[in-house]
Amino acid sequence: MSRCLIPKADVKSFIQQCMVAVKTKPAHAKALADVLVEGDYRGHYSHGLNRMDMYVKDIKSGICEKDGEPTIEKETAATALVNGNNLLGPVVGNFCMDLAMKKATESGVGWVVARGSNHYGIAGFYSMQALEQGMMGMSFTNTSPLVVPTRGMECTLGTNPISVAAPAGKDDSFVLDMATSAVALGKVELHARNQQTIPEGWGCDAKGAVTQDPQKVLDGGGLLALGGAEATGGYKGYGLGMMVEVFCGIMAGATYSNNIRTWRETSRVADLGQCFVAVNLSCFAPGFESRMADLLSIHRHLPPAPGATSVLVPGDPERQHIAECESKGGIPYSVHVVSHMNNVAKELGVAPLPVSVMDK
Amino acid sequence: MSRCLIPKADVKSFIQQCMVAVKTKPAHAKALADVLVEGDYRGHYSHGLNRMDMYVKDIKSGICEKDGEPTIEKETAATALVNGNNLLGPVVGNFCMDLAMKKATESGVGWVVARGSNHYGIAGFYSMQALEQGMMGMSFTNTSPLVVPTRGMECTLGTNPISVAAPAGKDDSFVLDMATSAVALGKVELHARNQQTIPEGWGCDAKGAVTQDPQKVLDGGGLLALGGAEATGGYKGYGLGMMVEVFCGIMAGATYSNNIRTWRETSRVADLGQCFVAVNLSCFAPGFESRMADLLSIHRHLPPAPGATSVLVPGDPERQHIAECESKGGIPYSVHVVSHMNNVAKELGVAPLPVSVMDK
Repeated sequence: MSRCLIPKADVKSFIQQCMVAVKTKPAHAKALADVLVEGDYRGHYSHGLNRMDMYVKDIKSGICEKDGEPTIEKETAATALVNGNNLLGPVVGNFCMDLAMKKATESGVGWVVARGSNHYGIAGFYSMQALEQGMMGMSFTNTSPLVVPTRGMECTLGTNPISVAAPAGKDDSFVLDMATSAVALGKVELHARNQQTIPEGWGCDAKGAVTQDPQKVLDGGGLLALGGAEATGGYKGYGLGMMVEVFCGIMAGATYSNNIRTWRETSRVADLGQCFVAVNLSCFAPGFESRMADLLSIHRHLPPAPGATSVLVPGDPERQHIAECESKGGIPYSVHVVSHMNNVAKELGVAPLPVSVMDK
Repeated sequence: MSRCLIPKADVKSFIQQCMVAVKTKPAHAKALADVLVEGDYRGHYSHGLNRMDMYVKDIKSGICEKDGEPTIEKETAATALVNGNNLLGPVVGNFCMDLAMKKATESGVGWVVARGSNHYGIAGFYSMQALEQGMMGMSFTNTSPLVVPTRGMECTLGTNPISVAAPAGKDDSFVLDMATSAVALGKVELHARNQQTIPEGWGCDAKGAVTQDPQKVLDGGGLLALGGAEATGGYKGYGLGMMVEVFCGIMAGATYSNNIRTWRETSRVADLGQCFVAVNLSCFAPGFESRMADLLSIHRHLPPAPGATSVLVPGDPERQHIAECESKGGIPYSVHVVSHMNNVAKELGVAPLPVSVMDK
């Protein structure tokens, strides 16, 4: 797969222009561009530029609102219920996370849930906002059904991510940002395209049986929850996925479980549920950041198993990817993805991203 | 393994008497008995009567305090930092969960962390207390190191459980109560005793390599985090285990990670960290319980995969075990465990539990 290198600022401006070209409010277009580029920059390419066409299409078709603001429907000192008013996910997410942090500043904790939202990119984008204020942040979203529950055959839960970010002193942090499925659907698709088998535990076939054939997962099967089969703890991952649904769809009164529209279906609004939590660490034992730094250090300094590279902590793989981008002076993209998005841009009258193929 | 049946009230009274015999404050002895028996009643035998000797020993040796009360060191409308004053875990847990619920009643959320605590039994005992008030409850604890992080060879995290309980209307609820390791150590021990291999993903050997030999896990190896090997998502389980440590040891300023004393070591105080959260559901979208009931119903009514029994939801296996106890008129125990505890009781001058072997 040939790759090209594009400066972060250029991708951001490109996405923003494409979104504005379909009449998205400029501030909303910027919010979306920020999240998508951050996804790519952190190495989560499944939640970046490669999804731009989906957002463009949603705004164009009117299935997602291009203007307006989220509204608070109900609030207390530490909580709020927000109506995302069917705006772009990042607009709703930024609004809610900001509100959660304000509440945490005053009350110690802010717990905000939103209904009427849309895809919000990487969950970590919101939890990490708390780091700048020395707080712990959390973010959760429900998503289109892709995961088959233990003992079942049908997809009833999404990949329902969990993100928790906590500060660890100067420029360091704990950033957990994970789907509650064993893997992302994109990884299964990639293996199918390359005609490779998948590890046991990633997915099941249409009869709910664990399979190593990626095509069977895609043809009426589904992803397995973290833990894989029941014997290896898959029921725990299934429970965690349902927990995320409780925090999101159930608590917010949004659409939930197998009532959520399927992936890339755009004939009806998404009405996703999302949950944002900020915790004011100054309300607990003093010295949080130094203990947090020590916990990370304990793990990073462990002798690795024979054949393994260093032990990492949540956030390190992303940190490595960011360092790679910084040293190269841009984000490495698949030429295929950039060309596709340039075609989308062309139709919108937006100047294309430069495609200069890197050595690889 | 032969089993005997003992009425719930009898086991409770037995544990209470044994704890009082070593001079535990009667209310504390009762708190412990309640949690342990609830563990057994729910089918989590690893956290019940079979651990009574450990608690007796801790009180006898003075490594755990037999009298006193937890103290609040710091609080806001929605948060508190509690010093467990080295009391029995259930005494600390009940105090904190009660405080979290009071704060949630007033502020919408209560987030309480404790340091200076001890083993508190099943995590679900505390989260479930919120159900009686129509709230959502959560409970987390750090534990002695038993889990080897992805790419590592040493145990640095405990089985660090997560429990979340949410009401679903009359007599029904969502109760997630899970270790963040793939399985409990007890399951590996059982396989070793029966000379059975273990599924891939439960544990690793002393070199950090995934193994199916339970003895290698016990001889200097360790448990794997939920997800097993790195390729099957074990790094996510490892991240969740560390998240629990952040909520507990790091936030509370308790002992953490590989600084925690090893399992059954009693030469120094445990100083465990624990976290208790209550969320007032009336602060969010109306109709929580009926949506929650619907989410459970969607899953319980799914057609099961060929060869599988019905699809369950978190809390159902425990519900089935409780129903079994109710229909039999007592909790089925291993005769071996009861005999051992009767020996402990004998030394304390406490009347033994009756051992009448059941058919099985």
